[in-house]
Amino acid sequence: MSDLVTRLLEGLPAEAVLTDTDVLASYAHDMASFCPAGAPAVLVLPREREQVQHVLRVASELRVPVVPQGARSGLSGAANAVDGCVLLSLVRMNRIVNIDPVNRIAVVEPGVVNADLSKAVAGHGLAYPPDPSSWEQCTIGGNIGTGAGGLCCVKYGVTAEYVLGLDVVLADGRLLSTGRSTAKGVAGYDLTRLFVGSEGTLGVVVRAVVALRPAPPPQLVLAAEFGSAAAAGDAVCRIMAAGHTPSLLELMDRTSVRAVNRLLKMGLPESTEALLLAGFDTPEPGAELAAVGELCRAAGATEVVPAEDTAESEMLLAARRAGLSALEAVKGTTMIDDVCVPRARLAELLDGVARIADRHRLTIGVIAHAGDGNTHPTVCFDATDPDESRRARESFDAIMALGLQLGGTITGEHGVGVLKREWLARELGPDSLEVQRGIKAVFDPLGILNPGKVF
Amino acid sequence: MSDLVTRLLEGLPAEAVLTDTDVLASYAHDMASFCPAGAPAVLVLPREREQVQHVLRVASELRVPVVPQGARSGLSGAANAVDGCVLLSLVRMNRIVNIDPVNRIAVVEPGVVNADLSKAVAGHGLAYPPDPSSWEQCTIGGNIGTGAGGLCCVKYGVTAEYVLGLDVVLADGRLLSTGRSTAKGVAGYDLTRLFVGSEGTLGVVVRAVVALRPAPPPQLVLAAEFGSAAAAGDAVCRIMAAGHTPSLLELMDRTSVRAVNRLLKMGLPESTEALLLAGFDTPEPGAELAAVGELCRAAGATEVVPAEDTAESEMLLAARRAGLSALEAVKGTTMIDDVCVPRARLAELLDGVARIADRHRLTIGVIAHAGDGNTHPTVCFDATDPDESRRARESFDAIMALGLQLGGTITGEHGVGVLKREWLARELGPDSLEVQRGIKAVFDPLGILNPGKVF
Repeated sequence: MSDLVTRLLEGLPAEAVLTDTDVLASYAHDMASFCPAGAPAVLVLPREREQVQHVLRVASELRVPVVPQGARSGLSGAANAVDGCVLLSLVRMNRIVNIDPVNRIAVVEPGVVNADLSKAVAGHGLAYPPDPSSWEQCTIGGNIGTGAGGLCCVKYGVTAEYVLGLDVVLADGRLLSTGRSTAKGVAGYDLTRLFVGSEGTLGVVVRAVVALRPAPPPQLVLAAEFGSAAAAGDAVCRIMAAGHTPSLLELMDRTSVRAVNRLLKMGLPESTEALLLAGFDTPEPGAELAAVGELCRAAGATEVVPAEDTAESEMLLAARRAGLSALEAVKGTTMIDDVCVPRARLAELLDGVARIADRHRLTIGVIAHAGDGNTHPTVCFDATDPDESRRARESFDAIMALGLQLGGTITGEHGVGVLKREWLARELGPDSLEVQRGIKAVFDPLGILNPGKVF
Repeated sequence: MSDLVTRLLEGLPAEAVLTDTDVLASYAHDMASFCPAGAPAVLVLPREREQVQHVLRVASELRVPVVPQGARSGLSGAANAVDGCVLLSLVRMNRIVNIDPVNRIAVVEPGVVNADLSKAVAGHGLAYPPDPSSWEQCTIGGNIGTGAGGLCCVKYGVTAEYVLGLDVVLADGRLLSTGRSTAKGVAGYDLTRLFVGSEGTLGVVVRAVVALRPAPPPQLVLAAEFGSAAAAGDAVCRIMAAGHTPSLLELMDRTSVRAVNRLLKMGLPESTEALLLAGFDTPEPGAELAAVGELCRAAGATEVVPAEDTAESEMLLAARRAGLSALEAVKGTTMIDDVCVPRARLAELLDGVARIADRHRLTIGVIAHAGDGNTHPTVCFDATDPDESRRARESFDAIMALGLQLGGTITGEHGVGVLKREWLARELGPDSLEVQRGIKAVFDPLGILNPGKVF
């Protein structure tokens, strides 16, 4: 038994310390393509914060890298193993400690699945809004690590808006409490927000105080078809400029629509170049659907279908929900980008992605949180074909370059991880990188926390 | 002419570099009581970011402290001079660079007055929600520095929620851009949020991208009188637990109500122990006012007065708006605390403050953003009476101790500055302070940025 494992077992039960090669291999990576994963030394599955502290103390003493993990549903390789590391999976720390309807907060452990929290608070008439597409698998800890978004963000904001306070185990095993349980608070620097989106490079979240909202009424959805991406982008701008606040505003391009058509046999016309879905969860959504329908027509919509009720709304959303599976079915493998641009530049991004797809002779479908300008251009390719794989990677990079050129960011909600490390420097520039590395060194002077990620 | 002034004049016009003693004295402090101010060496009033960069470069070379200032309406001494410093007032950098209704953002310089931004965006049907009570004087740069709140935060959140990106001049004069102009973005650590609330200790904000919202409908306000603080606190809890989201939920205790009665002759009954004001800016606020009125009655309200229209709502709010002036009139000087507790603990805080007032033989009125649990216990005292001044300071501290004891924070929205420096350590503990000092050193290795503030 290695010295590392022996030392870990001093503070963890045997069932929480795993070294079986197959198990390690299955935990070694998240869902990103093109991201190398190293060979981990050991997997630990703690249930208590003291056990996490023990892991970090041992890792610091032995100078062993630690890779924190949630559900490994991430798309940037941030949870991938590095050689000789401790894989620190937080999935067993999945208690919902408290739900407080008066103060509208919940206290949760990091391994709580997003959907489980949503269901639990729904029982109190409350909602935890951030809703990544992987919400039935992903954990709150992982959401905090990546700064996750979702469909609802156009109205309700992203994870950062909902994290009030954290308990974090630092690299040396000390426990740090940040933030507050109150609605407001400005005592000292905002360390809470610094941890959100830090991808496990600053500390390990072992408890979070999250803000809740009253559960909104059920949403009503409108679908609109367009003959060009430019017309759909124009509709998005008209809707936002007119002062509407949809609870979702999603867009699928021609490629995604056709892929879904093939998968679900939905009978959408092949002439549809873009499908826009707008949801409203106000007390009287019908009036807003009518107004938004008019704006879509003014922007050139060829068809506008407002749902009559929740069941019809769900049917319309089914196309959106099937989008990624449908694109996966095209070539077997997908690579999902996450470029966010000012929403006024959305049409330019869609047109640019179509040109990139042509140039690289690839199928690239775009599904977008259009209301946020947050697009997921999804490259479909055959991973067994080296030339096509190379073109897939090149087109992926070309899309990020386009996003930056349009005043956007390389990652709206998926994070940097391994996948976009070189691109971070292009977005931030040397001065920002220097400051960020300085902050990293304050929290992790030995460089043991998720090394090789983000930077 | 000192070497410092000579060097400053190399990059600033003469009218922007002031050394007149009276002028310096008038700029040497903000509106906090009990906060010493040093003797500044010079006041600079730049109009361009390059001038700010020059100031910081000179200050770094000469190791001279720099104190950034907005409108100096702060209440914690964060903008107070330190001996020999450059006072760096940003009030002349007050251009609204851009208002973009499609992307719902504004780009502003730090010296833009909060109310001026609000009025400018209102012309586009938009709102910049954060509304500190000093909104007609305070600047966006100052709001960012303190992480300012206001009345609307119970529904719309605080300044941190609205700052998307910043241009910041670092201690050595370099220009750092943080964040984004897009709705989402998670590339690297959230430096933007780190600057919000950092009270000028990490850098000097010279431009900000802020998020806007569609302007809400006019709000309708309900007033409810209670025979005890406990009953009013109970009403707040019932309103929030029932899932209402008021656009404001303000509370005044007996002392504040009586002070306002004296000042404005409003004829509120002397038996009123607490006055609650609830506002709603939904499309149909009448229904919500009726429901909230019922909840207030259930909690024991002795009188419930729902406004019929906007004009009546404004009359009810006039009492709240006059609160601080009325308390100032009691003894000539006030000291405004800023303790935020979980809203379920509000009644305990109010009762505790009443006991502290008795024990210290002082008048302390409480005005509270009750929906946030954010209270402003306001100590009224005669500053020419040394014994009363001592008791005022002691009661102020006792209130912070009570806030911490109730699971709250020493500052909800006013910041730490000089006033609460020792208390910050009590709230955060040594590990957090060590991390915070480490971050400070990354940005300001020479310690020239607003030294002696916060820590």
